[in-house]
Amino acid sequence: MTTNQLVQEIKKKKSFLCIGLDVDLNKIPPHLLKEEDSIFAFNKAIIDATHHLCVAYKPNTAFYEAYGLKGWKALEKTINYLNEKHPEIFTIADAKRGDIGNTSAMYAKAFFEDLAFDSVTVAPYMGKDSVEPFLAFENKHTILLALTSNQGAFDFQTKTVDGKELYKQVLETSKTWEHSENLMYVVGATKAEYLADIRHIIPDSFLLVPGVGAQGGNLQDVCKYGMNNQIGLLINSSRGIIYASNEDDFAKAAALKAKELQQEMAIILNK
Amino acid sequence: MTTNQLVQEIKKKKSFLCIGLDVDLNKIPPHLLKEEDSIFAFNKAIIDATHHLCVAYKPNTAFYEAYGLKGWKALEKTINYLNEKHPEIFTIADAKRGDIGNTSAMYAKAFFEDLAFDSVTVAPYMGKDSVEPFLAFENKHTILLALTSNQGAFDFQTKTVDGKELYKQVLETSKTWEHSENLMYVVGATKAEYLADIRHIIPDSFLLVPGVGAQGGNLQDVCKYGMNNQIGLLINSSRGIIYASNEDDFAKAAALKAKELQQEMAIILNK
Repeated sequence: MTTNQLVQEIKKKKSFLCIGLDVDLNKIPPHLLKEEDSIFAFNKAIIDATHHLCVAYKPNTAFYEAYGLKGWKALEKTINYLNEKHPEIFTIADAKRGDIGNTSAMYAKAFFEDLAFDSVTVAPYMGKDSVEPFLAFENKHTILLALTSNQGAFDFQTKTVDGKELYKQVLETSKTWEHSENLMYVVGATKAEYLADIRHIIPDSFLLVPGVGAQGGNLQDVCKYGMNNQIGLLINSSRGIIYASNEDDFAKAAALKAKELQQEMAIILNK
Repeated sequence: MTTNQLVQEIKKKKSFLCIGLDVDLNKIPPHLLKEEDSIFAFNKAIIDATHHLCVAYKPNTAFYEAYGLKGWKALEKTINYLNEKHPEIFTIADAKRGDIGNTSAMYAKAFFEDLAFDSVTVAPYMGKDSVEPFLAFENKHTILLALTSNQGAFDFQTKTVDGKELYKQVLETSKTWEHSENLMYVVGATKAEYLADIRHIIPDSFLLVPGVGAQGGNLQDVCKYGMNNQIGLLINSSRGIIYASNEDDFAKAAALKAKELQQEMAIILNK
């Protein structure tokens, strides 16, 4: 999918919501545990109930790997279901991968070719040659960790490196990499005030913003500082939506929560 | 496995060799492609031929994920084979994971419980709460990326942060984390002269050292600067050993290459 197609979809749905599909078998409605593939059954119900309210889905691979082969199979079924039923929706493998060049190329193959995700999250610690193999894929997107939403972000990311915070060095350095037009960035909502500075460095890039809702970030602030003239934001919510209820009505409850966020977004977009 | 058991195994075998099981179906002997599970068939042959010469095996997860479900199944069979046949051998999931706390806990479960690896490699970019869920597992080891062996290491890792290189900040900060006694570190052999400084910060920790052989690092230099009184080194070689031949004799050729390295190590240990 091209960035332009994503922008069109945002305008059409009046939503820049991304729903995180982080399936924890301890949290889903108990009646689903009887299903042959409980993880996929949960995802399918969530997708069926919310696809008109969001423009992206983001399964975090950790939640699938934790269930071994069964989990990997559910991930495969989920992405296939999305690509068949809703090819207009942007898909993100939240995998936070990164390795030396030839190895990163294997990860890129896994997520872009075999699983056919539109994008994958990548960690920057190993530098240029660990990220460029992902960037080489046309119309695929590499979402680089810049400033994450957790407390540990302050351990290294906000430390000053040669006169500038590490996450800003990551932003600036990454702009010099080959096919940097395929970069997007993770920027946590819990640090919305940082977004103004970030927009000076990368005015045009899409930002994937976790941390709205469960982690305490505020949508209005994020939009105020982070939105650009192509919107340029994907706001992720995971637990706040998918675990709104763990009764029979879980999918409906998820849709209600998604709709709340979508309507807030529509008001912002209509301004 | 405890660190002490690993040290005993090193002394017994006179080897601190780790063999990287990075299976690429384009590089393995063509006759293996007829096998039902070519990846596992390759690994089993390599393990059978080399287990007496090394103390650790390290599958890099990228090479398995690139083959989807088939790859994940082969990884599972490989670790199960190692744990059944050679429980005295230290196993490393080279996965370079790391995410916010509750998500890192899922990765830790995946690699330490379901797959029952002794250790996993983890990226430090997201800080303390992304690493501590791994450290919480008793007698399991978290191998933190410090200074990697690739060119991209110079993009951020060696940059100066508050008067000290980032990788040194990672080493020092990580020592303050809960259960830091379960930490080991990745330090590339291509930067052997950095090892003296590193040993000042973490005198007692084990170092996993990639980059000897194919990536140009030198074993003598690594040992000169990096060895401590408990040896404290695992030297990894992947391509140099497992792809020594792609004919019928591949396992024998791998054993010969492994033996060359083991004999060099025995001389160093006997000094």
